[in-house]
Amino acid sequence: MRQPCAVLGATGMVGQRFVERLAGHPMFSLHAVTGSERSQGKRYAEVDWVLDTPRSRKSDELLIADVASVLADDEVRVVFSALPGGLAGPVERQLAAAGKRVFTNARDLRMQPDVPLLIPEVNPDHLELAWGQDPSGGFVVANGNCAAIVATLALAPVARAYGIERVEMTTLQSLSGAGHPGVSGLDAVGNVIPYIAGEEDKLQSEPQKTLGQLVTSPDGARITPADFRIRATATRVPVREGHMAILHVHLRHGADSEGVTDALSGFVGPPELRGLPGAPKRPLHVMTDERRPQPLHDVGREEGMAVSVGRIQVDGGGKELRMVALGANTVRGAAGQSLLNAAYAEKLRASS
Amino acid sequence: MRQPCAVLGATGMVGQRFVERLAGHPMFSLHAVTGSERSQGKRYAEVDWVLDTPRSRKSDELLIADVASVLADDEVRVVFSALPGGLAGPVERQLAAAGKRVFTNARDLRMQPDVPLLIPEVNPDHLELAWGQDPSGGFVVANGNCAAIVATLALAPVARAYGIERVEMTTLQSLSGAGHPGVSGLDAVGNVIPYIAGEEDKLQSEPQKTLGQLVTSPDGARITPADFRIRATATRVPVREGHMAILHVHLRHGADSEGVTDALSGFVGPPELRGLPGAPKRPLHVMTDERRPQPLHDVGREEGMAVSVGRIQVDGGGKELRMVALGANTVRGAAGQSLLNAAYAEKLRASS
Amino acid sequence: MRQPCAVLGATGMVGQRFVERLAGHPMFSLHAVTGSERSQGKRYAEVDWVLDTPRSRKSDELLIADVASVLADDEVRVVFSALPGGLAGPVERQLAAAGKRVFTNARDLRMQPDVPLLIPEVNPDHLELAWGQDPSGGFVVANGNCAAIVATLALAPVARAYGIERVEMTTLQSLSGAGHPGVSGLDAVGNVIPYIAGEEDKLQSEPQKTLGQLVTSPDGARITPADFRIRATATRVPVREGHMAILHVHLRHGADSEGVTDALSGFVGPPELRGLPGAPKRPLHVMTDERRPQPLHDVGREEGMAVSVGRIQVDGGGKELRMVALGANTVRGAAGQSLLNAAYAEKLRASS
Amino acid sequence: MRQPCAVLGATGMVGQRFVERLAGHPMFSLHAVTGSERSQGKRYAEVDWVLDTPRSRKSDELLIADVASVLADDEVRVVFSALPGGLAGPVERQLAAAGKRVFTNARDLRMQPDVPLLIPEVNPDHLELAWGQDPSGGFVVANGNCAAIVATLALAPVARAYGIERVEMTTLQSLSGAGHPGVSGLDAVGNVIPYIAGEEDKLQSEPQKTLGQLVTSPDGARITPADFRIRATATRVPVREGHMAILHVHLRHGADSEGVTDALSGFVGPPELRGLPGAPKRPLHVMTDERRPQPLHDVGREEGMAVSVGRIQVDGGGKELRMVALGANTVRGAAGQSLLNAAYAEKLRASS
Repeated sequence: MRQPCAVLGATGMVGQRFVERLAGHPMFSLHAVTGSERSQGKRYAEVDWVLDTPRSRKSDELLIADVASVLADDEVRVVFSALPGGLAGPVERQLAAAGKRVFTNARDLRMQPDVPLLIPEVNPDHLELAWGQDPSGGFVVANGNCAAIVATLALAPVARAYGIERVEMTTLQSLSGAGHPGVSGLDAVGNVIPYIAGEEDKLQSEPQKTLGQLVTSPDGARITPADFRIRATATRVPVREGHMAILHVHLRHGADSEGVTDALSGFVGPPELRGLPGAPKRPLHVMTDERRPQPLHDVGREEGMAVSVGRIQVDGGGKELRMVALGANTVRGAAGQSLLNAAYAEKLRASS
Repeated sequence: MRQPCAVLGATGMVGQRFVERLAGHPMFSLHAVTGSERSQGKRYAEVDWVLDTPRSRKSDELLIADVASVLADDEVRVVFSALPGGLAGPVERQLAAAGKRVFTNARDLRMQPDVPLLIPEVNPDHLELAWGQDPSGGFVVANGNCAAIVATLALAPVARAYGIERVEMTTLQSLSGAGHPGVSGLDAVGNVIPYIAGEEDKLQSEPQKTLGQLVTSPDGARITPADFRIRATATRVPVREGHMAILHVHLRHGADSEGVTDALSGFVGPPELRGLPGAPKRPLHVMTDERRPQPLHDVGREEGMAVSVGRIQVDGGGKELRMVALGANTVRGAAGQSLLNAAYAEKLRASS
Repeated sequence: MRQPCAVLGATGMVGQRFVERLAGHPMFSLHAVTGSERSQGKRYAEVDWVLDTPRSRKSDELLIADVASVLADDEVRVVFSALPGGLAGPVERQLAAAGKRVFTNARDLRMQPDVPLLIPEVNPDHLELAWGQDPSGGFVVANGNCAAIVATLALAPVARAYGIERVEMTTLQSLSGAGHPGVSGLDAVGNVIPYIAGEEDKLQSEPQKTLGQLVTSPDGARITPADFRIRATATRVPVREGHMAILHVHLRHGADSEGVTDALSGFVGPPELRGLPGAPKRPLHVMTDERRPQPLHDVGREEGMAVSVGRIQVDGGGKELRMVALGANTVRGAAGQSLLNAAYAEKLRASS
Repeated sequence: MRQPCAVLGATGMVGQRFVERLAGHPMFSLHAVTGSERSQGKRYAEVDWVLDTPRSRKSDELLIADVASVLADDEVRVVFSALPGGLAGPVERQLAAAGKRVFTNARDLRMQPDVPLLIPEVNPDHLELAWGQDPSGGFVVANGNCAAIVATLALAPVARAYGIERVEMTTLQSLSGAGHPGVSGLDAVGNVIPYIAGEEDKLQSEPQKTLGQLVTSPDGARITPADFRIRATATRVPVREGHMAILHVHLRHGADSEGVTDALSGFVGPPELRGLPGAPKRPLHVMTDERRPQPLHDVGREEGMAVSVGRIQVDGGGKELRMVALGANTVRGAAGQSLLNAAYAEKLRASS
């Protein structure tokens, strides 16, 4: 029995990725899609498909609806949100209040104290926040910024094993991160833009929440963010898919490159993740070829759900780690992450 | 004494090219620029500069005006139009009726019987149409579609020397031809789009007008278009500047490649062009290296005003010619062509 | 029972494509790979993998051998050749004389009168040439040039239905067609090169052989090439995979675009092909969206074995057809074609 | 009177840049070019020109010679070296011993204690090392790695004004930095390679030498390198020209962004540089538009001799500076720097 679900903002790039990966999903079946007023009432088949992969025909007949109809649809209990930032927050809260379980890629509620910023391999216990979020049983679970997720996954085992004091990060982010049409071809071909609006703030604050500690008290649960500083510079490069993060990490405890490699390679999530749709066998793939990871070759590992890490080097008496992480920004960095969050949360609910 | 002039639609890509090339122009001085309502009232310095070349500071202080103010400005007699197609025609007619001499890059009036589609090296006599266009002395002179100009220049000496029966043309057109933002980076990088809206019709009809014959009668002058067929397919490639036309030409009279090379290399315009600003020493540069012309290397020849021609091959008993032409689409294919048209027309007026 | 096979020239781009697609192939199992002297003796795992897809691990343990050892290996009866042109011919003849059935992507023997230039959907009967090629039972079957295959597939149903008088073709070919490293990044990014060494001759002669007629006589079988002229210009564009052919076709009999669309969409090969590994359900996918086919979106159709055709337009009183064909050059245009040829030939042998 | 000079390794990318910029140089005239054995004896016109700019015709008639003939040519006293690393060192020492004044772009002698690693705007006094290098009066002056020069110029005024404690640097380097053919188009288009062989070591050590202090004693002069640590990660991006350095700098003394901007904007070299050929009016151009600098738009500032700096941000209580520097790697980062070094050194010699 698959859960009926809806995708909000289904016509954009991330929305399309949701629809693509829901085709044939063993846990969820797509009942409704929403879009802007301009597209409402059209069949989903009429949407201009912007992904490289062929369009799934399963969703062709769906009519593009508005959010109100999803809100009113009692059958749909699980909602995926690819709504634009600014618009998303109030809508998602309203849906949660109506008992829907919302898994959102939007930025609006990420840093709200009662919303988990979830990567099940990293902070599965933060889901605790969701259970108590609304008396209706509805809730909002967020995933982070696309590049922040990639970096956080690579940092998680390092934080556990050695402690992190500070991180200097530079990202080389792909065009799909800006959606379609996004960056003009004239600005993209043969060029680099050393700025992405709003990006650096997220890169400097979201990983600490995901890597933070759940503290429960009689007043309820909350997250104490991890206590380290990140300085980030985000650039746009002419790559189609794949955000690369160059990570210069200052460690609390001495490490060596073998130890870091082992910590990354051996990193796994909680046992409940095993076998879940969208859960990679190994969330982190360590590469020893110094020319890797590369977007062209590595972005598709484990269907876009694994982050590749290379160029591991420890220096400065064991306290300075350099590594390069790469992940599929519209998959692990967006729709794929939301879907994994939902699969995990639904499994926990079912088993509790 | 430089003629005061205005640029209509000065904020777009072609408009910026006009402004760039008017800086320091010996015949024209830029007095006014216009833009859409959204930009009117701003200083030109506030416009987002999209050309690769640095912005000329000379125009920074100009305020972006509306067309009405240009119409009312008696000082401005020469107007360059980079208005969008659809909008341009009526405005340009109105300016001409007010005595302005309008040199337009817009498509609207190109095929009107009383408007010359001018390339001074090719059909200088067509200017005759302009002189009689409006009792006020104002007129509209058009230049062709960006890729059509490149092809027409390469075809002109061939038509003269051998006669043309038909042309099969495929164009590989650059991103700047679509303006900014134009083509999405996601559609551009590593891709080809085998279609450009509205382009093929222009490629199939404009060259015949420019290569046509001026016929004068008591009723006035008109153009008999050249009597050959063009079939064209237009594609978009991830190149910044430079439209390439692959030309398969069926000739009326037998040729050999030396003859064609000589005809192209020796091609010059009327003597009045010599030394005019923007007039290349040789409008056509023949290349013998079979790997050329290439956009990266050849688009800037004679400051973008020369068309490069390579891969000349004659076959089929002398009746089949293949050549590859390349030109700077925003320069020779647009603003540069308009400016050369104006320089030529103004010189003729001055000397008559 | 899978046939043991060998891949000659297994370290290059096409060789790697052979190895990739032989992993898990239901009819063939890879027993041997050969490479240049420099690589002989190494494990295949040590070869620098240049395809975007992950390396198949199945072949990692194979030792790179020389051709002599393949010649001497009686177990290996089927050989795939990705040898470089110039080197390939004598080696392939020698292997055939030793009873091997050789399926080659090399250019050397393509135009030899006793070697079929095979596309099973188009000229399955040409295999007749192979059966009688060598008393040992060995033979060489060739596939055409990568872009020629794409064009031939699109032209085949047109030739059948309307007859072809002549073709004017321009190709926009991808970087992978030049192998790795092939074209320098400095020549590729943001550029077009209007020349590919040796390519145009192949494009102008190979399709006529594949589309030719098998004539049998007491002296044996031979091919009468199709009686039409092709003029081709080949260009290199910054695309990774996918050759596009712009085809301007002069027909013998009047057509309309619906008829052409039906002829292409309905095109299928002989019944024996059905269900064979590598045989696409429909060899030709007709696209009505005028912006398609595009390399990024369409090169992977039917795992690279379908050719996409768009921009179908009939003009000139029904005698002038324009269409744009796109195919995966290292798959349908090379290794995939060879493998399909082999699957088809082996099936026929088995059933005869 | 122009000094006769030679360019060693004149056929490569940097060698061509030397030849290009020597055409019409007011201080030097090109008398000899050398190349590998394969090219010796050919006319320079036969060399495949790989720069985007048109080939200068002035050097066409030069015959490509060997180093021995330069060594023997008493007329040539100034030598520019674009020899490959590994080969360059001994040759350059030999030329210096013969009284030649060698300005080298090669890596071999950069870190030798008696060789200045010169950027005249930054460490003009280091030339002192050269004067005493060889009794013959000959010497070797080196310039740094292409990306190191860009970073060093941006860091120099910061080091002077605030002191530097450490630097975390990520570079996004262009294809021309790898020469021609260099990076394969298949690895370049739509991709990032997070590694450049040998680059990071240079980035981590050369700036400290250039920013170091000249200490003179009775035993001679030597350089005390600047006392700060650099950690660098070098990546290759699909850009033609322009290395970008993302600089995260820890300062010794508190700064604010206005102060940093002033220090960079006001940075000038010694008065002797003013008006020298190749000396930019301002070595550092500060950009306030956060989307800049971009390779496409800014690499050509002051004919490639200015470094553009943007994204200036001070944080962490004034002790953490972030900035993004961009420079033309084959100009300011290579041939242009050598030529400026030579112009400066020759002027000092002439005036002493």
